[in-house]
Amino acid sequence: MISGIIIHEPTREYVYPLERNKLAIRLRTKRGFGGTCVLVYWNRCKKEETYPSYSRMECYARDNMYDYYETIIVTEQATRYINYYFEIEIEGNTIWLNYYGQSNSVPDNGFFEYLYTNEEDIFKVPDWLKDSIFYQIFPERFCNGDTSNDPFDVAGWGSEPTRDNFMGGDLKGIEKRLDYLAQLGVNAIYLNPVFESPTNHKYDTVDYFKIDPHFGNLEDLKMLVNKCHLKGIRIILDGVFNHIGYYSKEFQDVIKNGDRSNYKSWFYIESFPVDGEKLNFETIGYYKMMPKLRLGNPEVRAYILKVASYWIEEAGIDGWRLDCADEVDYTFWHEFRKVVKSIKADCFILAETWRENRDMLRGDQMDSVMNYVFRDAVTDFFAKQCISSMEFDSRLNKFLGVYPKTVHFALFNLIGSHDTPRFLTLCKGNIDKMKAAAAFQFCFPGIPVIYYGDEIGMEGGNDPECRKAMEWESQKQNMELLEWYKKLIQIRNSKPALRSGSFKCNYCSSDNSVYSFFRELEGDRIYIVINNSDECANIILPVKESYKDIEYLHDMISGVAYKVECKDNKICYNDDINNYKGAVQAELKPYQVCIISK
Amino acid sequence: MISGIIIHEPTREYVYPLERNKLAIRLRTKRGFGGTCVLVYWNRCKKEETYPSYSRMECYARDNMYDYYETIIVTEQATRYINYYFEIEIEGNTIWLNYYGQSNSVPDNGFFEYLYTNEEDIFKVPDWLKDSIFYQIFPERFCNGDTSNDPFDVAGWGSEPTRDNFMGGDLKGIEKRLDYLAQLGVNAIYLNPVFESPTNHKYDTVDYFKIDPHFGNLEDLKMLVNKCHLKGIRIILDGVFNHIGYYSKEFQDVIKNGDRSNYKSWFYIESFPVDGEKLNFETIGYYKMMPKLRLGNPEVRAYILKVASYWIEEAGIDGWRLDCADEVDYTFWHEFRKVVKSIKADCFILAETWRENRDMLRGDQMDSVMNYVFRDAVTDFFAKQCISSMEFDSRLNKFLGVYPKTVHFALFNLIGSHDTPRFLTLCKGNIDKMKAAAAFQFCFPGIPVIYYGDEIGMEGGNDPECRKAMEWESQKQNMELLEWYKKLIQIRNSKPALRSGSFKCNYCSSDNSVYSFFRELEGDRIYIVINNSDECANIILPVKESYKDIEYLHDMISGVAYKVECKDNKICYNDDINNYKGAVQAELKPYQVCIISK
Repeated sequence: MISGIIIHEPTREYVYPLERNKLAIRLRTKRGFGGTCVLVYWNRCKKEETYPSYSRMECYARDNMYDYYETIIVTEQATRYINYYFEIEIEGNTIWLNYYGQSNSVPDNGFFEYLYTNEEDIFKVPDWLKDSIFYQIFPERFCNGDTSNDPFDVAGWGSEPTRDNFMGGDLKGIEKRLDYLAQLGVNAIYLNPVFESPTNHKYDTVDYFKIDPHFGNLEDLKMLVNKCHLKGIRIILDGVFNHIGYYSKEFQDVIKNGDRSNYKSWFYIESFPVDGEKLNFETIGYYKMMPKLRLGNPEVRAYILKVASYWIEEAGIDGWRLDCADEVDYTFWHEFRKVVKSIKADCFILAETWRENRDMLRGDQMDSVMNYVFRDAVTDFFAKQCISSMEFDSRLNKFLGVYPKTVHFALFNLIGSHDTPRFLTLCKGNIDKMKAAAAFQFCFPGIPVIYYGDEIGMEGGNDPECRKAMEWESQKQNMELLEWYKKLIQIRNSKPALRSGSFKCNYCSSDNSVYSFFRELEGDRIYIVINNSDECANIILPVKESYKDIEYLHDMISGVAYKVECKDNKICYNDDINNYKGAVQAELKPYQVCIISK
Repeated sequence: MISGIIIHEPTREYVYPLERNKLAIRLRTKRGFGGTCVLVYWNRCKKEETYPSYSRMECYARDNMYDYYETIIVTEQATRYINYYFEIEIEGNTIWLNYYGQSNSVPDNGFFEYLYTNEEDIFKVPDWLKDSIFYQIFPERFCNGDTSNDPFDVAGWGSEPTRDNFMGGDLKGIEKRLDYLAQLGVNAIYLNPVFESPTNHKYDTVDYFKIDPHFGNLEDLKMLVNKCHLKGIRIILDGVFNHIGYYSKEFQDVIKNGDRSNYKSWFYIESFPVDGEKLNFETIGYYKMMPKLRLGNPEVRAYILKVASYWIEEAGIDGWRLDCADEVDYTFWHEFRKVVKSIKADCFILAETWRENRDMLRGDQMDSVMNYVFRDAVTDFFAKQCISSMEFDSRLNKFLGVYPKTVHFALFNLIGSHDTPRFLTLCKGNIDKMKAAAAFQFCFPGIPVIYYGDEIGMEGGNDPECRKAMEWESQKQNMELLEWYKKLIQIRNSKPALRSGSFKCNYCSSDNSVYSFFRELEGDRIYIVINNSDECANIILPVKESYKDIEYLHDMISGVAYKVECKDNKICYNDDINNYKGAVQAELKPYQVCIISK
């Protein structure tokens, strides 16, 4: 008996519907288990006609602990009354897994069971996400389009950013630069907060129903949204609903009236009088300027839901990025999703979370998460070069393994934000590293996100340095990098496989310099090979069997054609290598990336 | 490196708050792993003061695959910003587990993170559940208290039950027998459906707002509820919300008006005209009499939520047992919980589900589940004797292992229902087996549930036989069994440890005849020893160290006193045995159960 290495749990993590008649069932084994896993299933109400049905489990991800398997069963009608167990062939033996555990004989009871797929059980994310390229804008620092609304103490554009200073960026500025964004190739914008607040970051909201006067007004936002939509650009706002600003009328009322305030139950107050120095009220991260909202209070819930609805209905925004989503009680997000989706079905709901958070991605909360886990892996591998390509691969596969397939192409894959040092700075200014990382980002499953200015080589450490004014003087922009981003976007847009194809690593070099994977959709496979080192690397890239009669493969970046040759010299950690009949050989320069296609 | 045997996932299954300042964190290892697992944690915003804090993980369950560990950390304020990893000592080595996997050095990144406990994040179940003893009544067959409302074709009380016949049971009958129930010792009743329907089981509702006329009327239910409450008995109704009756006005309208019916979107109709023979509409279990409700339709949702509220507000019922809860879309239960709990905070929400269903028990759906997994284990071990005591123990520990502690004392532990053969019949009439099983049931964590008539030895196979008329002639009641149930209830009521003490198996005999476990609360430990065989069994029961100066332990069932002696002859599978300094020795008769206390 092989114990403890095959895992299936009767939970939504392991069993989830894709459509009313399509059900995904997952299984994990210990990494490198190597057996063949088959799902045996039937409709328990129609056992005679349906038992046994078989479906082979496919390994879709592999991290340092587990191989992740999935199969999708398709039923004629809505899926219902499915009983199942697993049959596993390993080293000439067969073992079975049912609810009671592993056994050496075909189970005759203790079956797993999946009962019914109702419409509401199906997790759907907006279809447009898979084709989107996002651009994150910190409004105070992107472009000053209207100097008449500048703060009185505005600092010059391009001054050293501090925690407190202002440079005059506004909504009109963004509107003015839409052509730039369209030419770059982005088709979606995420704006940091724009509601009234005394700070430059505006995470301490004073009035959720009012655009900050230094950014403009409602009409400006409507105009911006309209102009975006005319250019095919979607736009989402930052919903800071975990906490409010110290200077909001609600919190000021509590400060003033204490225990008698009508708003006291809007907050978690420990004692009166409320005292910012003693911090006798709950906040985010012990910041007194950001008192935590009590979202369990139905009045507060209703208020915030009204805010969420208002900006969709009034300004036509396409979604919400939800600040500190993982600090808010999850039942609020249930309601939030219901309300927001009922107003605009393809509205994007994006959570800020810095860790893997699969609980949010079950269909009742978020459409996607800010994939900081991706960002950390990319930073460690490309910028810091402190993890091996195997470890890099493990980190990527881990979140792909546990997140439902539904969200793979909707993951919000950033490499930096207003809350991190800029990526180029983490690369110590090495443009080649940055280019390799960006190429990886644009070829990986999920949404590539550009933090404003990264595309032109802006640098800066953590906040406030990462929030410098956007550099608009073209001679100060890194044009090589800008062209690189444009090229990556053009390549991604030209290849559906890069947007919604499956992902599989096919090579990690033992010296950690080369990482290679492919994306595949409907038989079209794109190989991505990255030399993450400052030395040249010779690679032999095995190509799939059905490609063996193709004479040349082409690197979409350099344009170079590589001859497919029959190779005995196989280097690949992917087990399927044995089925390959051809390979291309290439020498990659330091940090060179190839995106190889037919 | 020891791989794949230590599991912690950053999900609500592994991390869940008990109070705003109490957080439970779980870990699994391969069964018998045997190491020492310590949680290392800190508040990331106050790392200097709080790192490292340690909390030792305790093994609280063990099945055939895993050992289940948990620890509870208590923070001064509401729990927030916790970073953590695990330190595991095994065979002289130390390994660490963080988000990225296992390592041989103290992790300096990749920490697990838990962010904030909001009020609504806490899963609370009604406090009264842990002290409740439930009695399930199938109303048509319990007692005929009002012959004037009998169906015209009523069969004699005690006739052979068929799928279709009626015997005249009603609400007045239940009211009449409340003294019987109170004397038995039950303090909660679960009624099978009572709303208008043409069948004897009433799972095909015609009108959710009307008591079936053969059962009585609204006033009768109110009277029944009032009388129950006066006796300290709570009462819950059966909510059949997954489907409606074929003869409901809503479905009849669809039959009559087809595509033009206002109710067509209440159902999943495949084509018109609706045809019960072709079954071109969705139902439960392909039963044409029970068309499935489309609970995703806001109108249907609102209607059913009104039903749920109405009976709580109007009749004062104490909860809902939800039929086929696992076939309904789970987002409906989110709303259901919210609505029902807002009306009556300690309302009991109980799901019918035949499998382990941990997704329902996260705090946003159910308070508890009908524990058919418990029933199957008890049936296989006691009635059918087809599983070993180790396997029995594994099955029990498996659900204890995966369900949050929050619900352990609220699990609805039945041994039979209107949908199963009666337990005594599965025991082939062997009263001793039934007594042993009942004793086990009343000593195990969770709510003991008596299916009407089981306590007096009623027999019957599957539906319709398990739905015979209750036997009220005392000479036909098995008084030995009835007294046994009364005694079990009295013992359970006398010992808080049996209601809310921890559970641990301490002995499975190798010949599978003896199963022994203890319950413990605040130092008071109750040992339960069961001889599940038709031969005598000699047992040596190790008693805990702090008991070593106690001279005698007492069997609460037989009254026999057992001398605590120092024993070298230790038989126990519990690892802690080495710490025991005393033991009691006893000979157990076939199927004898001892409940041993100080």
